[in-house]
Amino acid sequence: MSIKLNCDMGESFGIWKMGLDEEIMPYIDMANLACGFHASDALTMNKSVALAKKYNVTVGAHPGYQDLVGFGRRSIPCTDEEISSIVLYQIGALSVFCKVHDTYVSYVKPHGGLYHDMMNKENVFRAILSAISSYDKSINLMILSSPKNEEYAKIAKGYNITLLYEVFADRNYNDDGSLVSRSEDNAVIHDEKEVISRVKNLKEKGTLNSISGKELALKVDALCVHGDTKNALEFIKILRKEISA
Amino acid sequence: MSIKLNCDMGESFGIWKMGLDEEIMPYIDMANLACGFHASDALTMNKSVALAKKYNVTVGAHPGYQDLVGFGRRSIPCTDEEISSIVLYQIGALSVFCKVHDTYVSYVKPHGGLYHDMMNKENVFRAILSAISSYDKSINLMILSSPKNEEYAKIAKGYNITLLYEVFADRNYNDDGSLVSRSEDNAVIHDEKEVISRVKNLKEKGTLNSISGKELALKVDALCVHGDTKNALEFIKILRKEISA
Amino acid sequence: MSIKLNCDMGESFGIWKMGLDEEIMPYIDMANLACGFHASDALTMNKSVALAKKYNVTVGAHPGYQDLVGFGRRSIPCTDEEISSIVLYQIGALSVFCKVHDTYVSYVKPHGGLYHDMMNKENVFRAILSAISSYDKSINLMILSSPKNEEYAKIAKGYNITLLYEVFADRNYNDDGSLVSRSEDNAVIHDEKEVISRVKNLKEKGTLNSISGKELALKVDALCVHGDTKNALEFIKILRKEISA
Amino acid sequence: MSIKLNCDMGESFGIWKMGLDEEIMPYIDMANLACGFHASDALTMNKSVALAKKYNVTVGAHPGYQDLVGFGRRSIPCTDEEISSIVLYQIGALSVFCKVHDTYVSYVKPHGGLYHDMMNKENVFRAILSAISSYDKSINLMILSSPKNEEYAKIAKGYNITLLYEVFADRNYNDDGSLVSRSEDNAVIHDEKEVISRVKNLKEKGTLNSISGKELALKVDALCVHGDTKNALEFIKILRKEISA
Repeated sequence: MSIKLNCDMGESFGIWKMGLDEEIMPYIDMANLACGFHASDALTMNKSVALAKKYNVTVGAHPGYQDLVGFGRRSIPCTDEEISSIVLYQIGALSVFCKVHDTYVSYVKPHGGLYHDMMNKENVFRAILSAISSYDKSINLMILSSPKNEEYAKIAKGYNITLLYEVFADRNYNDDGSLVSRSEDNAVIHDEKEVISRVKNLKEKGTLNSISGKELALKVDALCVHGDTKNALEFIKILRKEISA
Repeated sequence: MSIKLNCDMGESFGIWKMGLDEEIMPYIDMANLACGFHASDALTMNKSVALAKKYNVTVGAHPGYQDLVGFGRRSIPCTDEEISSIVLYQIGALSVFCKVHDTYVSYVKPHGGLYHDMMNKENVFRAILSAISSYDKSINLMILSSPKNEEYAKIAKGYNITLLYEVFADRNYNDDGSLVSRSEDNAVIHDEKEVISRVKNLKEKGTLNSISGKELALKVDALCVHGDTKNALEFIKILRKEISA
Repeated sequence: MSIKLNCDMGESFGIWKMGLDEEIMPYIDMANLACGFHASDALTMNKSVALAKKYNVTVGAHPGYQDLVGFGRRSIPCTDEEISSIVLYQIGALSVFCKVHDTYVSYVKPHGGLYHDMMNKENVFRAILSAISSYDKSINLMILSSPKNEEYAKIAKGYNITLLYEVFADRNYNDDGSLVSRSEDNAVIHDEKEVISRVKNLKEKGTLNSISGKELALKVDALCVHGDTKNALEFIKILRKEISA
Repeated sequence: MSIKLNCDMGESFGIWKMGLDEEIMPYIDMANLACGFHASDALTMNKSVALAKKYNVTVGAHPGYQDLVGFGRRSIPCTDEEISSIVLYQIGALSVFCKVHDTYVSYVKPHGGLYHDMMNKENVFRAILSAISSYDKSINLMILSSPKNEEYAKIAKGYNITLLYEVFADRNYNDDGSLVSRSEDNAVIHDEKEVISRVKNLKEKGTLNSISGKELALKVDALCVHGDTKNALEFIKILRKEISA
């Protein structure tokens, strides 16, 4: 069973740099590239796609709400038609750079507030599916793996869209398979060894221990790693080694 | 000989409306659609492409500098790589809506400051050609028809891009075939009858009289009409009739 | 008893025009001027303040969420510190034009989503009060008049800020003094004669009939009129005459 | 004779951090604070002014062209009225945070393209002077010190505005007192010891050696230091010590 590493990339904006894209790109499988609404700009996208291609990293569109100053983290109320339109716009902008650099948009992973709304509001999830489906049904949609995977998959099937499931190896999960809220002290696991051990379990058994120790079976196509934290590069290298072992 | 009518369309932004797109679309051949940098937004683009498709109007991308508050009219210094990237980004964003509505981007006509710079700076012209060429060589580039058409065509040929030539029927031309500057009082011809008479000449003889009365032979693939002036709709209807006669 | 007419003004943006500011300004008492976050720009603000001064219209800051494409109508989640900062920024930008044109910011009336959030979330209301209070306690804050006026006033008093109460003469009110939701068919009163009659009642008796006919006593410092609807100018002239009678 | 250290500060934007403001603020005299057009945002400005006040650093407004993606470095053609309006808007936005934090805008130093245009186009210089003068004549304007100081001063006097002159200690100067263009290899002096030696000369003799060794007498109210380069903090500490010695 093969687990991929996906990472948000290309999130610099104009003169402002974010993340260690050049250093991290060689160690990941899937790059979620910002599309200019919450981060990135035309030139940055051009370069980011070229970098992904250089290391044969699969390109995903990482569309967000139109909110640079808030980095797309805030949930902005939109009509379904607006959601579809901003997702299509961003996929299109990224697609052209992909074609120029001889690659393609393989999947969509919404960013921040849009990701959160997709997981929590069926109409947003459907608006995103509808957008992708109207453009290119071969593009997958990446969502957060949870015990409700089947419910999401059923809806996605109606749009002929394949879902990819991602797991956060460095986040604690409740017994019901949901993420421990970031408002809780123990939302994030800072002990690298424990994270590695969780990844090993996911890879070998397809399970993750909840915060109370319950063994959760979670589909996992990809693990989400972060490129902008302290020691990000070193940690990603270790994960890479563990996953590829 | 067939002359097309092209018009800047889809230049509303958010709640702000510009032009009479719904009324004018039925009477034109080519819609230059704004792509979100100098005007328009994702939802407006989605609707504008749908409207063009409804009336079988050919869609052109109308990319501009990233300058909403200046409506893209100002020349903003960019590197060649930046020019190429902003043109590609905007073509891509529009393309996706075209695919969704079962049409395609047939040509590119830069807007405002970018159009002006394209005509006056060879590096900008080349950066735009390079962008289009790297993405899709079947997309044409529309430029201002002038006695220098052959020079532009020679450069474009190096990128395998076909040029389209547009003429402004309501603008006066100097004897050398250049436009009378807008800083001059007689830059624009306000007499509709005279404009119609000029269009007739262009259609039948392929010529335009200069301001001194000299007969200029100008290639003309398309006439540019304006949708946001007084009596725009009535005038376009008359032009339509004249051209289609 | 004196009732003022307040109107959202200065909501053009760049080349996009909104409203009939020049025509309407002579007939209103208070101009709520957009400050560049949901509408307007530096040049438009400069001109709008000059226009208000020309007709001796009191200037109010009309700050909104940072959301041009959504015209500030959407509620964007912000921390209290962010709310205070965006309100201060916009008051400051407007203040400078006021000083240049020999007038001043007399009050603040938040726009769209920010107004709605102010009325519905105490922390937003307090963040706005705190911002104004930290800058200049002589600036008033305009809110929607309702049976809860005293509750709002009590909170405002803690910040030494005076509230102004506005009523929408063309909106129906429920028996409890709240506005009939816009999702209801009868939210807006389209019959001008009825609106005028309501204004007469407000002026003479300080009351408004609810949708069921119940007589509501509502504090009213100002009536909100709209400058961007059909017949706006004619209707405002009639209201002006009625109020000034 | 007292020379001040001025530094561009508060140039982070949203989540994107720029510079070491917290570390550098204690060592400078004057903070040129971005105002949201080329960098910064309302919350960042609020915090930046608070930081300046904490270390008793004089606050200057650092207005730029409305061009986040280009960081205000590009020259954007504006009418004089537009220049005045964007400068006023930005001064106003910063002023309000200054008042809240019990300080004030002491001077204006335009940023990037606007600074360049101010030094090279008299109409831009006058539009900036006119803006400041119409708002508050006690606010100074900082310009680049050069042999043409008197010409600038004469113009500024017509607006009752006092000029401040800044020198770049780490830039080479031509014999005529102009800066060696950045397109030249030797535009910037990278040898810290040489820079310190130049500062010593400026302080003690008021002169700077040109690239050919000619001694130039240059008025200097302030030296411009950079907070976003390698070793910026260490170098500023050394300059501080040298200047305060």
